[in-house]
Amino acid sequence: MKVLKSHKCLDGMVQYWQHDSIETKTPMKFSTFIPDGNLNGCLIWLSGLTCTDENFMTKAGAQKFLSASKLMVVCPDTSPRGLNLPQEHESWDFGSGAGFYVDATTPGYKDHYRMESYITRELYGILESQFSMKGRISISGHSMGGHGALVLGLKHPTKFKSISAFSPIVNPIQSPWGRKAFTGYLGENESSWNASDACELLKAGHKHPFPILIHQGSADEFLEKQLLTNHFVEAAKLAGQKADVKFSEGYDHSYYFISTFIEDHISHHLNAQRGSQ
Amino acid sequence: MKVLKSHKCLDGMVQYWQHDSIETKTPMKFSTFIPDGNLNGCLIWLSGLTCTDENFMTKAGAQKFLSASKLMVVCPDTSPRGLNLPQEHESWDFGSGAGFYVDATTPGYKDHYRMESYITRELYGILESQFSMKGRISISGHSMGGHGALVLGLKHPTKFKSISAFSPIVNPIQSPWGRKAFTGYLGENESSWNASDACELLKAGHKHPFPILIHQGSADEFLEKQLLTNHFVEAAKLAGQKADVKFSEGYDHSYYFISTFIEDHISHHLNAQRGSQ
Repeated sequence: MKVLKSHKCLDGMVQYWQHDSIETKTPMKFSTFIPDGNLNGCLIWLSGLTCTDENFMTKAGAQKFLSASKLMVVCPDTSPRGLNLPQEHESWDFGSGAGFYVDATTPGYKDHYRMESYITRELYGILESQFSMKGRISISGHSMGGHGALVLGLKHPTKFKSISAFSPIVNPIQSPWGRKAFTGYLGENESSWNASDACELLKAGHKHPFPILIHQGSADEFLEKQLLTNHFVEAAKLAGQKADVKFSEGYDHSYYFISTFIEDHISHHLNAQRGSQ
Repeated sequence: MKVLKSHKCLDGMVQYWQHDSIETKTPMKFSTFIPDGNLNGCLIWLSGLTCTDENFMTKAGAQKFLSASKLMVVCPDTSPRGLNLPQEHESWDFGSGAGFYVDATTPGYKDHYRMESYITRELYGILESQFSMKGRISISGHSMGGHGALVLGLKHPTKFKSISAFSPIVNPIQSPWGRKAFTGYLGENESSWNASDACELLKAGHKHPFPILIHQGSADEFLEKQLLTNHFVEAAKLAGQKADVKFSEGYDHSYYFISTFIEDHISHHLNAQRGSQ
């Protein structure tokens, strides 16, 4: 594991890392911001389509609030890199930059696109062993990364102390982005897709003990066709999952939206780490 | 003047604009963030080498503090675009993305690279007429843009209510970046360069009535050879120009540094707009 770049920021450090991943069998990058002083916990941030380990760190304006809350953040890349699998580099919503946080089962992809295991086991293990974050890890993300946070959090409710999401793809099996990705990573058998769909997980009885916080912009161009936020509201209600889904008037899908409400999400995860609701 | 993109942010609006410039005879872009409510004034932000109208808006994390202070910000592009002048696109520190905020006098460049007049007359006029900011305009910037803020602010102390800068090139006639740019834009006669050098302006008697705020990272890789911050400290002392030059231990030249101290700069300009020091 090596540090590629370091920048002092708000008395803490932003760092960009690279390591050889066991899960993806490729070099993987991630970034961290570690505030000065004793930490209360760690937030894993999963980014959206086309993003890297850099977007959240440069655009979210989160360091100020992470620093005040004494939470570190880690931002993994959104897919393995440096491969040349079929269709991997042909579109922005599949393959590189679009790993969808699942363990692929299709030929070629199954050997490398193991983003669920990369996050929940390998990176999680690094946070426990190298960053002393055992038992203090929460998860959040945006769009495809919001989907990732909901699915990984619901599947591993004891691993992740709290879940939040911005503009998540809550029901990917009914979304064109999700259907394209799941076909490519999980194959044509749609019943295998349910284990990677937040709404289906809720229907199947998965729950998280801490309330889930979601922000969704009402002017988000992807809301109606891709994100389907109301499906999550209904599924959570039926399942008895506590969820605070906030529709924010006039906000779109961009980091300007995230930077507006990131303070609320950091407070949410700090409350979870402190054991209050 | 047309809006290319709009994003709601912190109850205000980030907008990207384009207009046909009289000074540069090209389409010019700039961005604005306008907080909700009655405004106290406007900050012009001049960006550094290779930047566009986008960097500050996406990376500085300034909207939170601008919103609280009710200051709008406008970020012009760093040069004209869409031209094909000699050497214009051959290096990152001259030509496109590197206008240095001067009015060029050399063949070809003199017809378009009129960034000083573009900022102090054309954009300034737009802020007065289209954004109702008459008498309420301050100026700041980073690196090449810090040079621009110091020079334009010192040359026009009644136009700009206050000046601040991050990591500015304070003495470009003694800096390799500055010497290359001034040779290209102003020609070989070095005496013509002094009017675009903050230290030389101070020596020649230019002063600003409000104290100048500068932040400079001590770990900035460009400090010793290009930025020469101590030259400004000395020149300001000799000239009797009030200046608060803060050297920040361990910080580098990046936007992580800017985002750490931007709150202090916004407070500085708010104080100036309110007439307090």
